[in-house]
Amino acid sequence: MKKHLLSLSAFLIVLGTASAQNQQQLEKTFDSHLSSENIGKTIKELTLRPHYLGSPGSKEVAENLLAKFKSYGWDAEIATYQVLFPSPKVRILEMTAPTKYKAVLKEPAYKEDATSGHPDQLPSYNAWSADGDVSAELVFVNFGLPEDYLTLEKLGIDVKGKIVIARYGRSWRGIKPKVAQEHGAIGCIIYSDPKEDGYYQGDVYPKGSFKNEFGVQRGSIMDMVIYPGDPLTPFIGATPNAKRLAREDAENLLKIPVLPISYHDAQPLLESLGGPVAPEDWRGALPFTYHIGPGKTSVRLKLEFDWKIVPAYNVIAKIKGTDYPDQWIVRGNHHDAWNPGANDPISGIASMMEEAKSIGELVKNGYKPKRTLVYCAWDAEEPGLIGSTEWVEDHVAELKQKAVVYINSDGNGRGFLSAGGSHGLESMVDGIAKDVIDPQTNVSIYDRLKAREIVSAGSDKARKDNMAKKSMSISALGSGSDYSAFLQHAGVPSLNIGFGGENAGGEYHTAYDSYDYYSRFGDPGFNYGRALSQTIGRAVLRMANADTLPFEFKNLHKTISSYVTEMISMTDQMRESTAVYNQVISGNNHQLAADPAKPEKLPIPKAEVPYIDFSVLQNSLVKLESSALALSERIAKGNIPGTSLKALNEALYQAEQSLLTKDGLPRRPWYKHTIYAPGFYTGYGVKTMPGVREAIEQRDWKEAQDQIRISADAINRLAEHLNNTTKLAQ
Amino acid sequence: MKKHLLSLSAFLIVLGTASAQNQQQLEKTFDSHLSSENIGKTIKELTLRPHYLGSPGSKEVAENLLAKFKSYGWDAEIATYQVLFPSPKVRILEMTAPTKYKAVLKEPAYKEDATSGHPDQLPSYNAWSADGDVSAELVFVNFGLPEDYLTLEKLGIDVKGKIVIARYGRSWRGIKPKVAQEHGAIGCIIYSDPKEDGYYQGDVYPKGSFKNEFGVQRGSIMDMVIYPGDPLTPFIGATPNAKRLAREDAENLLKIPVLPISYHDAQPLLESLGGPVAPEDWRGALPFTYHIGPGKTSVRLKLEFDWKIVPAYNVIAKIKGTDYPDQWIVRGNHHDAWNPGANDPISGIASMMEEAKSIGELVKNGYKPKRTLVYCAWDAEEPGLIGSTEWVEDHVAELKQKAVVYINSDGNGRGFLSAGGSHGLESMVDGIAKDVIDPQTNVSIYDRLKAREIVSAGSDKARKDNMAKKSMSISALGSGSDYSAFLQHAGVPSLNIGFGGENAGGEYHTAYDSYDYYSRFGDPGFNYGRALSQTIGRAVLRMANADTLPFEFKNLHKTISSYVTEMISMTDQMRESTAVYNQVISGNNHQLAADPAKPEKLPIPKAEVPYIDFSVLQNSLVKLESSALALSERIAKGNIPGTSLKALNEALYQAEQSLLTKDGLPRRPWYKHTIYAPGFYTGYGVKTMPGVREAIEQRDWKEAQDQIRISADAINRLAEHLNNTTKLAQ
Repeated sequence: MKKHLLSLSAFLIVLGTASAQNQQQLEKTFDSHLSSENIGKTIKELTLRPHYLGSPGSKEVAENLLAKFKSYGWDAEIATYQVLFPSPKVRILEMTAPTKYKAVLKEPAYKEDATSGHPDQLPSYNAWSADGDVSAELVFVNFGLPEDYLTLEKLGIDVKGKIVIARYGRSWRGIKPKVAQEHGAIGCIIYSDPKEDGYYQGDVYPKGSFKNEFGVQRGSIMDMVIYPGDPLTPFIGATPNAKRLAREDAENLLKIPVLPISYHDAQPLLESLGGPVAPEDWRGALPFTYHIGPGKTSVRLKLEFDWKIVPAYNVIAKIKGTDYPDQWIVRGNHHDAWNPGANDPISGIASMMEEAKSIGELVKNGYKPKRTLVYCAWDAEEPGLIGSTEWVEDHVAELKQKAVVYINSDGNGRGFLSAGGSHGLESMVDGIAKDVIDPQTNVSIYDRLKAREIVSAGSDKARKDNMAKKSMSISALGSGSDYSAFLQHAGVPSLNIGFGGENAGGEYHTAYDSYDYYSRFGDPGFNYGRALSQTIGRAVLRMANADTLPFEFKNLHKTISSYVTEMISMTDQMRESTAVYNQVISGNNHQLAADPAKPEKLPIPKAEVPYIDFSVLQNSLVKLESSALALSERIAKGNIPGTSLKALNEALYQAEQSLLTKDGLPRRPWYKHTIYAPGFYTGYGVKTMPGVREAIEQRDWKEAQDQIRISADAINRLAEHLNNTTKLAQ
Repeated sequence: MKKHLLSLSAFLIVLGTASAQNQQQLEKTFDSHLSSENIGKTIKELTLRPHYLGSPGSKEVAENLLAKFKSYGWDAEIATYQVLFPSPKVRILEMTAPTKYKAVLKEPAYKEDATSGHPDQLPSYNAWSADGDVSAELVFVNFGLPEDYLTLEKLGIDVKGKIVIARYGRSWRGIKPKVAQEHGAIGCIIYSDPKEDGYYQGDVYPKGSFKNEFGVQRGSIMDMVIYPGDPLTPFIGATPNAKRLAREDAENLLKIPVLPISYHDAQPLLESLGGPVAPEDWRGALPFTYHIGPGKTSVRLKLEFDWKIVPAYNVIAKIKGTDYPDQWIVRGNHHDAWNPGANDPISGIASMMEEAKSIGELVKNGYKPKRTLVYCAWDAEEPGLIGSTEWVEDHVAELKQKAVVYINSDGNGRGFLSAGGSHGLESMVDGIAKDVIDPQTNVSIYDRLKAREIVSAGSDKARKDNMAKKSMSISALGSGSDYSAFLQHAGVPSLNIGFGGENAGGEYHTAYDSYDYYSRFGDPGFNYGRALSQTIGRAVLRMANADTLPFEFKNLHKTISSYVTEMISMTDQMRESTAVYNQVISGNNHQLAADPAKPEKLPIPKAEVPYIDFSVLQNSLVKLESSALALSERIAKGNIPGTSLKALNEALYQAEQSLLTKDGLPRRPWYKHTIYAPGFYTGYGVKTMPGVREAIEQRDWKEAQDQIRISADAINRLAEHLNNTTKLAQ
């Protein structure tokens, strides 16, 4: 440690030049203050009691984090918002026919898991379910996705007036009740099938890491693809005096009762179903023949919630930048959890606090970031990204002016680097990934990730392509954590970073996401917690110290081009396959091939797919390419006058805002980014170029053509912005 | 009926011209004598009691069939062979650790199934298991195929000295103990997993058609890919005085005990296994985490058999041909069954007897086939195609001289036409498929099959290709029924024809393959039984009456060409993928991508794939193409002198023998066909151009090159033969 400090002092003298060597030395020192053991201690400390939004435990955690930030030398405060939050009062699920069964709805305590019997535990439920007392026949709807309802239609099964049971998986959970409601269902049960999440995957808890028969995945079903955050205050911060919607006017709340259950509770219901045998891809791993219903099986679902306005405590900590105090490097992770939340979110927040501690040490030893660091521990992420969304909405103008980047993390685990976000930052992430060492293999986290991509590739061609790759690709971001408001609403360049892939298990959103679980199965030794601090810490320090911010828009151009190519080919493919589909129908083939003993509705022809004009989009990409190239060449040349730097950097980080559209996406104006959004029918899953892509997928050709123009305008704005940025460097 | 008979008389007068119109009228009359109801009656009558080889029931069935043939006006006799057949004396399977469990090994009787409790029932066992009493640790080997042992090796698990448990599926059952024995296992258990064969597929018997927890698939594990038939008399008929091998010298008998069990009996064994969690594609549908073992689970397997020489009764019935009595149209189906055998084989034999009855009626009304009809009801198919093989071996010289064709059927059910065999007969099958009407849809069985191929195609390209097709393709034959000795040993052009695909269930080789089951789930109304009689009856009558036999070798050339193209591309593909495979290894990617918590052996590089010389094969195909074309054109021209017809036809049906090779396939000289054979590691599954293809698959490049030459010689012989045939028509 001493040696590092000496080197540090030596380099601090020349920090003004921000040379690569100095930055490297700074990062080495930064690393020296990171302790896996301490990360483990933080996780243990913050998971002693349940700490969901509005609970005493949550306030305790927020105050603990506040005190920690202060003790590390940060300016810290708690920013409180007043937000709606339903907690369960009545939860009854009963099968009333053909036999009686009353669902357990309870996860038992285990001696191997110290916090599993905590009296503060939040029962299993889906936040934002409607209140209701409904009784009806039960229908199994597989994963509850739009394509599953096409199968039901083919089989002549209507869910109108029925209660549906869907299994978790293949989509964000909120899609299932949303689609059920669209089809007229009056209630929705979501269960974890052991096929996706239970004994089929591996030994169950507490023997192994997978979901046992009683485990229940809690979670929000707010329709956050419309807008996330407090349902009563879209577009504005949920300050005490904010103008609030009536709850029934909140467009992102469903109208039917929804309850998640275990496979122990699902088994008697599913096993008793009559009706047709479920198609092969509808079958799970429970030991009986899956049927769809309806018929002999009826259930009653009664749910009541306490709909309270509760305080959400965001902890905001800052270290002021010396040169550019109004350029903010924002970093965040939520702190609220459904219960102990050792993985989700405490593993992430423990790494973030370790970064904060280490940066505090650097500052105590004389380091001064050029830009302001803003570290945020969000409350109320679980019910719908509420803490971060309210803060962004409350400070949106300031953030558009000042926020250089938002770097998010959430649950973290053993395994491989996973990074998504704004493609203008792809080359920076690539550089970092090549500098951080994987704790298990002692090669870089880039090399390890690349090895896995090579080994797990689906074809020899993909394997060869992966071997030939020289840099890392980052994914596009959908939703599911606190970057949404920053990136998709405010246009702040964002990253979401974590490790995982070797921590498979079933603890997610159950009472067993505990320290005992996490230290056995999540990240034993907490070394990936340290790796996360190293990775994000580098991003923070590099952006805080850079003379010229490490944006590279050539990558963005390349990525958007690939999306456009993909959509053109998808449209051609749809045209071709629609023609074949219709030809198969007109040849009477379905009727002849069908099994007369299993009557099914015959498919009907689809409208032909027209040719779409992508040229404005293609032309905008030509402009973007040359403007990105010119900017890149100018920056590479160096010798940018010191007086230009502030404005140049501002232009660089504000560039992403050119991609926002004033009116937002069709039917969801809160989402303003033309390149990245959560899918309307995937939820967490991203749809890139969502306006165009979803219109094509929904076969709305008029809207597709409109959205092509809107997206092309956005790309043209970005090209123009980059041209102006290049001029600033003169 | 009367109207038809009148028309018939009219056409019999002109039958000598064998015009298409007359043939059509004959077939219409033939159809008029076929009764679905009567087929159902025959099935019921022949399934009243178990009738496996050597049982009193089997003798009864043979005598019943003999009497039927005679009553229909056929010359019929029983040809008896003396063959080895083991029946079970002792069957014990116990788990001895970690807990005790004694396997039930018994299928209960159900009131819904009248014959399910018959006292003559043959217990569940695998014929040709060795005697043995072994105790060892248990290892789960998935489907027990060579690739599963590669996975075991990767996981560091050796089955040497262990007892393995494999699930039914993905290969002929006999491959599983064979590969287990090759790897040093001392015993093998085969069970039906509900994933492939049980509740996962649908409702179980007697509620539904799928295998219930007690059902056991019996069956032979004779290594019939070496040679089928009586193990003691390869190459020769098992006549009373035939020279017999000692049992221990029979190369197609395994040396380890093998027992099939139900999933009820498998569950406690599999559930108790320790060791690594089974990879995803190893997991079945039982409700626990599948582990591989070995370790804490030990079992004892004790099996003793009564190894007796028993009589096999083949029923052979003839109607002598008028013009060419020494040209035989041979038709067969076995009559022995593991128990009642309503589907396997009685549904097939009932259709065959219906043909025999109808042909008898035609003959009574004056019809005289030009060629001799030989109808055969084989005994001892189930233990290893024994009845048919011994008969063929006993008459091989005569068959090579006289047999025009062998047309086989076996179990039959509701659904779609399935036809395989010699591609020289493909166009004949195509013509028939377009003439027979599907009983459920009233279009031709060709149109219905084509519709299914279109609807179930895996890609738009395949759908379009299928829609564009104008004729039916027949598949190549592997093994699994009585055509093997005819086609693959004697070179008699063969066909195997049946219906199915809408009769899915779990009765196969259980005690529940009964009339009660079959009339509910197999072919309710027995209309596909009648369709089978119509289809095969047409083949028999067309070949019996034809002036020039309907062989078309252009189809054969096209088919062999496609095999060669496929093998060339497979070899190129292996070369490319081996290079990539080795490159992935040399880049250290497996080591970096591996989960250190789950140690696995790293893969080692494979030898590079050399370029192989396929040119002799390609040149032989050029010759075959022109010779087939010339012959086809000559026949199409017509006006063949009556004096040439006998020799021409003989040359046509003997052409297939050119494709035999004197020495047979490597390591299995009994199999002499260079184009069709059962796969050495697939069993029932065909390997086309087996000598070349299996050498490539096994990466034996020297043998591949040798086999290319041998196959090219065969094809050149065929081309030469066809040239000579064309000359005969002058």
